[in-house]
Amino acid sequence: MTDTPTIHDIYAARPHVYRYLRPTPLHHYATLSDLVGTQIYIKHENHQPVGAFKVRGGLVMAAGLTTEQRKAGLFTASTGNHGQSIAYAARANAIKATIAVPEGANPGKVAAMRGLGAEVILHGEDFDSAREWITGVAAEKGGTFVGPTDEPLIHGVGTYTLEILDDLPDVEVILVPVGAGSGASATSIVAKSIHPGIKVIGVQSAQAPAMHLSWQSGNLMTAQMETFAEGIATRVPFENTQRIMRKYLDDFLLVDDADIEDAIRILLEHTHNLAEGAGAAPLAAALQIKDRLAGKKVVLVMSGGNLSVERLKGILSR
Amino acid sequence: MTDTPTIHDIYAARPHVYRYLRPTPLHHYATLSDLVGTQIYIKHENHQPVGAFKVRGGLVMAAGLTTEQRKAGLFTASTGNHGQSIAYAARANAIKATIAVPEGANPGKVAAMRGLGAEVILHGEDFDSAREWITGVAAEKGGTFVGPTDEPLIHGVGTYTLEILDDLPDVEVILVPVGAGSGASATSIVAKSIHPGIKVIGVQSAQAPAMHLSWQSGNLMTAQMETFAEGIATRVPFENTQRIMRKYLDDFLLVDDADIEDAIRILLEHTHNLAEGAGAAPLAAALQIKDRLAGKKVVLVMSGGNLSVERLKGILSR
Repeated sequence: MTDTPTIHDIYAARPHVYRYLRPTPLHHYATLSDLVGTQIYIKHENHQPVGAFKVRGGLVMAAGLTTEQRKAGLFTASTGNHGQSIAYAARANAIKATIAVPEGANPGKVAAMRGLGAEVILHGEDFDSAREWITGVAAEKGGTFVGPTDEPLIHGVGTYTLEILDDLPDVEVILVPVGAGSGASATSIVAKSIHPGIKVIGVQSAQAPAMHLSWQSGNLMTAQMETFAEGIATRVPFENTQRIMRKYLDDFLLVDDADIEDAIRILLEHTHNLAEGAGAAPLAAALQIKDRLAGKKVVLVMSGGNLSVERLKGILSR
Repeated sequence: MTDTPTIHDIYAARPHVYRYLRPTPLHHYATLSDLVGTQIYIKHENHQPVGAFKVRGGLVMAAGLTTEQRKAGLFTASTGNHGQSIAYAARANAIKATIAVPEGANPGKVAAMRGLGAEVILHGEDFDSAREWITGVAAEKGGTFVGPTDEPLIHGVGTYTLEILDDLPDVEVILVPVGAGSGASATSIVAKSIHPGIKVIGVQSAQAPAMHLSWQSGNLMTAQMETFAEGIATRVPFENTQRIMRKYLDDFLLVDDADIEDAIRILLEHTHNLAEGAGAAPLAAALQIKDRLAGKKVVLVMSGGNLSVERLKGILSR
């Protein structure tokens, strides 16, 4: 494994992560294990301060900035967890963060980013136009634009898989949601470096299969993006995470949004944790491949918990 | 402070707790702070393995048993978090746990206790008859009956308040739910020992005010018990925790069940955490005394998250 990033990069990221965060729990759930017919452990990244794993990456990225870059500030586009991660890291390091979100974005998430001290600017009718615009603003002001799969972010988010190995060294399968691919890439780098026999399986919504189609075909392919689960809603695939996942990922499954919604309800019942769509997708996939998982120690990465109450209400009332 | 327990007992409990558990997070929530009009921090005891703070106490109690006592096993009565705590501690120490629950108890909680390896026996039509019966069984078999306010449990649960002080040494107010009183007693012992200026406020449901009435009157008084929040549903008060709370608690508030339900919804929206009734009661109280809390650093103890999906569905659909 001579390409970058390597597990060594992820080890190097740890001090930056643990300056602000503690390891998240890996809990075993007996009744959920019975339901899936194997031993189920949940990696609770939903317990992070901003409710998602991405906060690890932002901290590592911010730690690597020069004094000049700190002064010029951070710029990104996001409607979700990536923006909160950048806002959190910026505040922790006394850096100004400017985040573009498309008009009509979830007001709760906008409020959360503002609550973390970021300047949030509504611009454009969709994510891509917000992103294009803020990239220009960053260039003009000499600031740093942070893309969702920038290498320091991969280094940072990889630390949760080291924690999984700390707590459960004999883990056999890890199911991880794939959005832009930073989490799945980092998970597979760590798992395969420590023990190639650990199976790492990516999961995406069948209603937004761009990363899956690209992984399967070997070419970067865009696709429809109609999932409610914004954490795994990727329309345009990312080259660097595709390269890593093609090398290390053992399998890549698609699950229907309806099954993700069921998984949210099941997780609430058996773990009393609120998962967002991305965070519940690994359980939906595990239920799809029960036969393959039987008798194994399986970790589901609950990547985040930022589900709106309105969405939850809809899921519970069905 | 020469009575027992003391903060030294709680320090002595730490190694037993951290042999199995990690500190839980204390998170600041910006939008929730805006809502209450002060700085709100949540102590996330709902992130514990069994979903509640009580797990700390069970581990300390189990660590103090003699070899003889370990062989004879642990016996208790519970329909909720206390039972799961004893089951968890017993499993961790390879001790047999026998838990009596009244007939008609929540099947989810029974399954959770069984999932932790406990023998669960349904007996009697209410909690008191289950408890009376299992006390007799324990005596007959030479086993140890564990009551909900036994001293080692207070020592163990006190460790979460040391963690609060670790993370936020300038905390000014702590709001803590009161069921049997072990959590509130331990919180006030720790807080007052470290800085008498920290205000500790207990919270109970107005629909189950026995502990509140006893604290206020100075006499042990039973009362109605009609709250849905089983974590703070106490009909018969406990002498030892009353004695501690009368000495150290600054105030003791009652909140209506309807306000607790509102608080559950608000916490879900602003923190994406599921709180059970007891875990949401401190927010309900904070909203009741906004004026007194203005400008202060306030910690709400989210004691547990074991709310049923059915109950949540009812709360969200109102």
